[in-house]
Amino acid sequence: MIIGGSASQALAAQVARELNDKLCSVETKKFPDGERYLRIKEEIPENEKVYVIQSTGYPQDENMMELFFILDTLNDMNIEDITVISPYLGYSRQERRFKETECISAKATAKLLQSMGIKRLISVNLHEQSICDLYDVPADNLSAMPAIAEHIKNTFEEKPIILAPDKGAQGFAKEIATQLDTDYDYLEKVRISPEVVETKTKNISVENKQVVIIDDIISTGGTIVNAINILKEQGAVSVDVICVHPVLVNDAILKIYAAGARSVQGTNTLKSEVATISLAKTIANHIKTL
Amino acid sequence: MIIGGSASQALAAQVARELNDKLCSVETKKFPDGERYLRIKEEIPENEKVYVIQSTGYPQDENMMELFFILDTLNDMNIEDITVISPYLGYSRQERRFKETECISAKATAKLLQSMGIKRLISVNLHEQSICDLYDVPADNLSAMPAIAEHIKNTFEEKPIILAPDKGAQGFAKEIATQLDTDYDYLEKVRISPEVVETKTKNISVENKQVVIIDDIISTGGTIVNAINILKEQGAVSVDVICVHPVLVNDAILKIYAAGARSVQGTNTLKSEVATISLAKTIANHIKTL
Repeated sequence: MIIGGSASQALAAQVARELNDKLCSVETKKFPDGERYLRIKEEIPENEKVYVIQSTGYPQDENMMELFFILDTLNDMNIEDITVISPYLGYSRQERRFKETECISAKATAKLLQSMGIKRLISVNLHEQSICDLYDVPADNLSAMPAIAEHIKNTFEEKPIILAPDKGAQGFAKEIATQLDTDYDYLEKVRISPEVVETKTKNISVENKQVVIIDDIISTGGTIVNAINILKEQGAVSVDVICVHPVLVNDAILKIYAAGARSVQGTNTLKSEVATISLAKTIANHIKTL
Repeated sequence: MIIGGSASQALAAQVARELNDKLCSVETKKFPDGERYLRIKEEIPENEKVYVIQSTGYPQDENMMELFFILDTLNDMNIEDITVISPYLGYSRQERRFKETECISAKATAKLLQSMGIKRLISVNLHEQSICDLYDVPADNLSAMPAIAEHIKNTFEEKPIILAPDKGAQGFAKEIATQLDTDYDYLEKVRISPEVVETKTKNISVENKQVVIIDDIISTGGTIVNAINILKEQGAVSVDVICVHPVLVNDAILKIYAAGARSVQGTNTLKSEVATISLAKTIANHIKTL
């Protein structure tokens, strides 16, 4: 049984279809004072294995509270086997303490979710793999890279170079390039003189090449805009931008297009204008292995 | 030690002053993607008795999540004795199931708060006394009526009649009238004929009298507007409106003034333009008894 929260309705429906599984709806509405009403639309047998799909990106607190309410209602139905699939897991960016007396919000979130009796958490390209260690129950960190590689294969006429905007993202570029049998690289900062730092591709030339920039998450878009400028200077024919989590705050999409990107795309871990790549198969295939 | 959340900063400071207790600040800010950063501004000794004051009215989910984050951070400091004071407790309106498979949000909230290790909950004029039963830890439901009576005594030249807008609120009117040694009543619907229902004061005449309408919570203001219209028709000289929780959604304040209220006031359980009555003493006095 697949339950879709309001933040991941289409994804939940697609996953249910992939698995030929039943999709259960959740009725949600807001009262005039802003409080949420929630009802799971049907009775579920106690022994059912239930997957709740709810992304917890912006508005994080609302999506989280809705998820808690769904889980508490399932608890009241005596459902024992509950897996939460939060393809974008909110509050994953602070998974350790940088300063004394700070809140480790990823840990607080883990505690709250587990207090609601979940048996497993599944997410996609978590900010840090170590977030899984904050959970006492099994926590699976799926990769969206196979789905992104498949998407590139199906929509690009020739094989592009896959480029990570910084060293931290080079693993993603490598994963995709390997699957597509193409080249990959990352942008590296090199100090030319005490005053001058130059950013350029580490190993290969992008001159006259089609380039796809890959990143796990794009927020303000600053890093990507910078990368596009450099690639254009170095003679790239075209630059397309693909990310897993299209957070893309404020005018980030416009900024990236304005910098010269041919396209901006992301997966449907979040609601976004550019969420063109569905992870339904990735998630469904993982569920099949459980 | 008193800790103020962002929804109850002034109230927390006032309570600390009343108790001559230490006030600890919480640093909160939002990242560009909407996620909250939170840091308790100082180290707190493990054996300290800590009171966290945070109202959880609109935006309920944000105020709740902030409260959970404060509590988790206190847990990390190994503070054992944590009391949450949420003068307006969000999600208190659904404390039982009216339809199968509905979420009992007041119960879900209780579970989440308790998962964060609180030892006691204190709130003010809860929607239903039975909400206290949803908690395994002690839950205290304070009355704002003594503070409201005191406020009326200090600001009205002559003793007004205290009027409840419906039978459900008559207990509040009685509590205040008794303290002020004045009259009270409530508005009652009387069926005059099969087609006609008349609403009027149950026992006493308001003609040529100053009237104060008392209610625990005002949301849309519809009930109050109706009450003002009736009291004016029946010859009340003036109508003032006082409530505990000034939820007052959308244009409720304007609607109530437009209906002819001389003033609209509430307590500071919520941030509001009309939150003129502080419950700092009520809360501080209760803390002294613990």
